[in-house]
Amino acid sequence: MTIKDVLDYIDENADNIVRDIKRLVQIPSIAAQNEGLFEAAQLVRTMLVRSGVEARLNPTKGAPVLTAQRDVGAKRTLLFYDHYDVQPAEPLHEWESSPFDLEERDGRIYGRGVADNKGDIVSRIWVLRAFQKTNTPLPVNVNFLIEGEEEISSPHLPDFLQTQTDFLKADGGIWEFGSTTPDATQEAWLGLKGILYVQLEVDLLSHDAHSSTACILPAAPYQLVWALNSLKDQEEQIQIEGFYDDVKPLTKAEKKAIDKVDLREEQKLEYYGIEGFVRGLTGDELKEAYYNAPTCNICGLISGYQGDGSMTVLPAKATAKVDFRLVEEQKPEDILEKLRAHLDSHGFTDVKIAWHEGYPAAKTPVNHRFVEIVKQATQQIFDHEPLIHPTSPGSGPLYLFKDYCPMVSVGVGDHDSRAHAPNESVALETFFKATRRVAVIMDLMGKW
Amino acid sequence: MTIKDVLDYIDENADNIVRDIKRLVQIPSIAAQNEGLFEAAQLVRTMLVRSGVEARLNPTKGAPVLTAQRDVGAKRTLLFYDHYDVQPAEPLHEWESSPFDLEERDGRIYGRGVADNKGDIVSRIWVLRAFQKTNTPLPVNVNFLIEGEEEISSPHLPDFLQTQTDFLKADGGIWEFGSTTPDATQEAWLGLKGILYVQLEVDLLSHDAHSSTACILPAAPYQLVWALNSLKDQEEQIQIEGFYDDVKPLTKAEKKAIDKVDLREEQKLEYYGIEGFVRGLTGDELKEAYYNAPTCNICGLISGYQGDGSMTVLPAKATAKVDFRLVEEQKPEDILEKLRAHLDSHGFTDVKIAWHEGYPAAKTPVNHRFVEIVKQATQQIFDHEPLIHPTSPGSGPLYLFKDYCPMVSVGVGDHDSRAHAPNESVALETFFKATRRVAVIMDLMGKW
Repeated sequence: MTIKDVLDYIDENADNIVRDIKRLVQIPSIAAQNEGLFEAAQLVRTMLVRSGVEARLNPTKGAPVLTAQRDVGAKRTLLFYDHYDVQPAEPLHEWESSPFDLEERDGRIYGRGVADNKGDIVSRIWVLRAFQKTNTPLPVNVNFLIEGEEEISSPHLPDFLQTQTDFLKADGGIWEFGSTTPDATQEAWLGLKGILYVQLEVDLLSHDAHSSTACILPAAPYQLVWALNSLKDQEEQIQIEGFYDDVKPLTKAEKKAIDKVDLREEQKLEYYGIEGFVRGLTGDELKEAYYNAPTCNICGLISGYQGDGSMTVLPAKATAKVDFRLVEEQKPEDILEKLRAHLDSHGFTDVKIAWHEGYPAAKTPVNHRFVEIVKQATQQIFDHEPLIHPTSPGSGPLYLFKDYCPMVSVGVGDHDSRAHAPNESVALETFFKATRRVAVIMDLMGKW
Repeated sequence: MTIKDVLDYIDENADNIVRDIKRLVQIPSIAAQNEGLFEAAQLVRTMLVRSGVEARLNPTKGAPVLTAQRDVGAKRTLLFYDHYDVQPAEPLHEWESSPFDLEERDGRIYGRGVADNKGDIVSRIWVLRAFQKTNTPLPVNVNFLIEGEEEISSPHLPDFLQTQTDFLKADGGIWEFGSTTPDATQEAWLGLKGILYVQLEVDLLSHDAHSSTACILPAAPYQLVWALNSLKDQEEQIQIEGFYDDVKPLTKAEKKAIDKVDLREEQKLEYYGIEGFVRGLTGDELKEAYYNAPTCNICGLISGYQGDGSMTVLPAKATAKVDFRLVEEQKPEDILEKLRAHLDSHGFTDVKIAWHEGYPAAKTPVNHRFVEIVKQATQQIFDHEPLIHPTSPGSGPLYLFKDYCPMVSVGVGDHDSRAHAPNESVALETFFKATRRVAVIMDLMGKW
């Protein structure tokens, strides 16, 4: 039995694979709301076991971490990093079909987590099953690490992994997500930005007041607005003292890699319905921002009356959810301290950092041998080389793996997948190609 | 039959009166949500008719306006202005009992609108009934004007009243609300600030994006924050060009009146759980702000993820509900134009004023004879003179009445009534005294 049998098996089982995605999407495993996590982890374990992989649920102080291993005594080891939790599905009314009931429309399947990253979990497990069912010898040893708190910045993963460094040692690793350019060119992501997510809260009055009293009473929403305004100016420059201190320029090799990248500016602008990027950036400057700019972004603003029409109230409280994307060498603890110091020194001692979560950035060197294997496998299945991005603008706890295994992110998602937003989806054609690519990566690693 | 019989009848019917308040509070007549308005108007009409007053529902383009009249050929006429609509009850979870099911606890009754202003409606109608049932001749002619859109800035009242100027002509008028100082001193309000309420909306992307793209995509919530920041500085100075042009200082008579007012700074600070007022104001400066400062206040902030925990999203839209309280001679249309000009000239052409509503301020002269009558009646029932406020910091369409009738606001509310906020309530003892005071005002007007 050969790799060809494996690839055929995947194609022949398309319906069964989609059925497994449907089962997993059905569980609303939303880490932010601490919902459905154990149930989702158990289903993934069952799927692993059914595919001949020993798997265990490791308890943490939060959601359990799944580890699974198939050691066939091969020379090389492949590691998968995935997560069974998903983003909240809000705003629900913007979904065209129920976020937790997979629906196929025009060659795409829609559901929360289908691109980020439940589709990949099912895809990768089915590759193992394909080797098993076709009696094809596995060319590599395989380790799975599947956590349940990626979407809330993996708060319990660092502690857990401290005791698992042997498990992390591998010759190559496939990170959770995949994507394409608007014209369907595959992309491979070699790094992830760090993140610091904070909830800022201002709580000034013991209760909401009639808004007429705004002439004499301090106002939480305005205090929050002033504080947020102080964090970033209209030129997108973050004003927290020392925020940029540890930001390093891209390396020559990285610059060479991104020379090949076309950010498809026109298509992006059209996709988002906008006329220009921040600060009117374009060309190399836009790329520089994409790969190497840390951010300060408001994910949520909540204060006072949220309904239709008017309510004349002076709200006692105001809340902002803010995420900072960090680049390599910026440390979240350090940025958190600088944020607190900034707020304090600008008269915002009453703006509380109610909670925070985060981790630093990390990158795999662009010239690594494993990167070459991913390129070749992509060429073989998709008929083109993937674009190599030195880092994604997104985040993930890659830094935990960095010292043990070179990781590359390729997967089932594409340009229209809308991860984190309503109507998340993947194209079935891309899904099955990406699944076959995993098998080819294993095959090529076996010859390394 | 004398005024004493009238006052006794009110006391004897306490339970019946509270039952009528309960019936009216049960109808969630929320103008902002266009709910229950006609039903509430009909119930009020029934109550009026039962008390011997001819009443009619006049259609408008919005909620109907109730007019009711009892002309007994007296020399003087008393006008009541009330409204049967209420503020939304949100946030619902902060209510200790259901907002639309009147509950009595420790001598207070709780429910949305009980202080603002359904309690007053029932109180005033029952005074008419007391005169009728005790066969006591009405000492004055009585007109009621009860609208259903006060809480959304009375958009259809001006048009309606253009044809009703005869109806508005009266020797004295009682405005909708009442209050007390923290130590239960009655207050009388001779004016109301104007208001301009706007909904600001920023809508930059065609759909929400993953927050990692904040490095290149424009962000609606930050654009809104910058725009709001530009409207008012941290010293509470409104930065809209020309905003203060029409603000006039208080008159000598007004200053003399407010010399008698003690704003009970310590008690206010304690009540709201704060350590100081805006800009550290105190004494005469605080009074000046209270009576004569226009405001710019955020009533609501809405953008992105509103749930628990984190969601890493770059929201496509952001909304702020903002109210400006205006003082005499500021015109809402003029301020609206200046706001638009300010936004445009500060780079916020993409911040839309999605809708607006409002009207100007108005005041009754502090030395008017009718003000004296209200003082005497208060002295007679409450055993002390009311504090005279040249204006309330709150708003109402008093400007429509100004040329026809001197209006004074006294009513059933008190310092702890929490109008517009959860757990709105009135004290029963104050409620019945305020009801009897209406009867005494009529009695004194009959001797004028």
